[in-house]
Amino acid sequence: MTFPDYFPIWDQLRQDQRDRLLESLMLRTVPRGTVLHNGDMDCTGLLLVKSGQLRAYILSPEGREITLYRLFDRDMCLFSASCILRSIQFEVTIEAEKETQFWVIPPEVYQRLMEESAPVANYTGELMADRFSEVMWLMEQIMWKSLDKRLAAFLLEEAAIEGTNQLKITHETIANHLGSHREVITRMLRYFQNEGMVKLSRGMVAILDGGRLKELGVS
Amino acid sequence: MTFPDYFPIWDQLRQDQRDRLLESLMLRTVPRGTVLHNGDMDCTGLLLVKSGQLRAYILSPEGREITLYRLFDRDMCLFSASCILRSIQFEVTIEAEKETQFWVIPPEVYQRLMEESAPVANYTGELMADRFSEVMWLMEQIMWKSLDKRLAAFLLEEAAIEGTNQLKITHETIANHLGSHREVITRMLRYFQNEGMVKLSRGMVAILDGGRLKELGVS
Repeated sequence: MTFPDYFPIWDQLRQDQRDRLLESLMLRTVPRGTVLHNGDMDCTGLLLVKSGQLRAYILSPEGREITLYRLFDRDMCLFSASCILRSIQFEVTIEAEKETQFWVIPPEVYQRLMEESAPVANYTGELMADRFSEVMWLMEQIMWKSLDKRLAAFLLEEAAIEGTNQLKITHETIANHLGSHREVITRMLRYFQNEGMVKLSRGMVAILDGGRLKELGVS
Repeated sequence: MTFPDYFPIWDQLRQDQRDRLLESLMLRTVPRGTVLHNGDMDCTGLLLVKSGQLRAYILSPEGREITLYRLFDRDMCLFSASCILRSIQFEVTIEAEKETQFWVIPPEVYQRLMEESAPVANYTGELMADRFSEVMWLMEQIMWKSLDKRLAAFLLEEAAIEGTNQLKITHETIANHLGSHREVITRMLRYFQNEGMVKLSRGMVAILDGGRLKELGVS
């Protein structure tokens, strides 16, 4: 599997555009925990994930985090190239949650493609609309949904991503995903444990009753 | 002032594209309070505001509102044409806050322009990035900022939009803008009044000390 297999509008590029893209690409592998982009960094470029998992989050002035979305195989990260989208006026941090391999498309190469190709420009717009939709979903959760429901939905999502009900995750990390405080998450998890929905141990949350979590999460 | 004066990328269109656009346009005027778009309606088309004021907001399942952003003269509303941006997976309601005059660009006409013109596609992406940035700003406010600060910032914004410190607005309406409850807003406004920052009367909030509100709002 090579870059053209991962880049959805490859077929709509001219040969000279394909050549330019392939010549400029870099394939990188980073270990878990690497911060690939934040507000202080120069424009990193567009990232196309080959394998692994990235997390996009925002930071409060006091250092609290909230996860906006995750990127998996074949997902493209636009916000690491916010320099070429001048109207993007917010800062997102992108971090590898697992060892991740990805292609970097240099910003000036992508910008030229966008300017000369309507398919590339429209694809970029669709990507932005995707992320926008995820953030709107999140905002609706935050505005209208209580933390117990958001926590239940988060645990189930993690279990689906990891393919296991034995989640290796700290309360601090969960708080960072949900924009909450560790103490608040610990209290809520203990309530879930008392209700028999999870079992807590050091650095672990085991899901015992996914059905009830699901009922809670979707209600 | 005609449509070409209001449409920022007019100069980058070909003559046949300009003709198609002008032939398909409709100029409409709606009274204050008109709902121009919501999730149940068909795809309304793109709206380009000539004069007046539109409000975009989301609704909770229980009918609570939160204002996402406002559109003024020369602003273009994309989300009333979400049918042509397939990745937009959320529902926004668009309502006229004042008598508003606007052009409607039919969705199929705009879609064809986007498909054949990189400038139109890129312009659309920039518009989406603008709105995305406004929503991200709002989310950061909601996540990290307390309601007193948000209320102070809201009152000052209203005063700037209306050009007066005598705001004709109910507590219910303010609550709808901020995604809060009327009772909560009334309590906070009374606190502001006790502090000498505002004066409350029936259906009115008068700003007495804009300087202190500003200090509170930006802190």
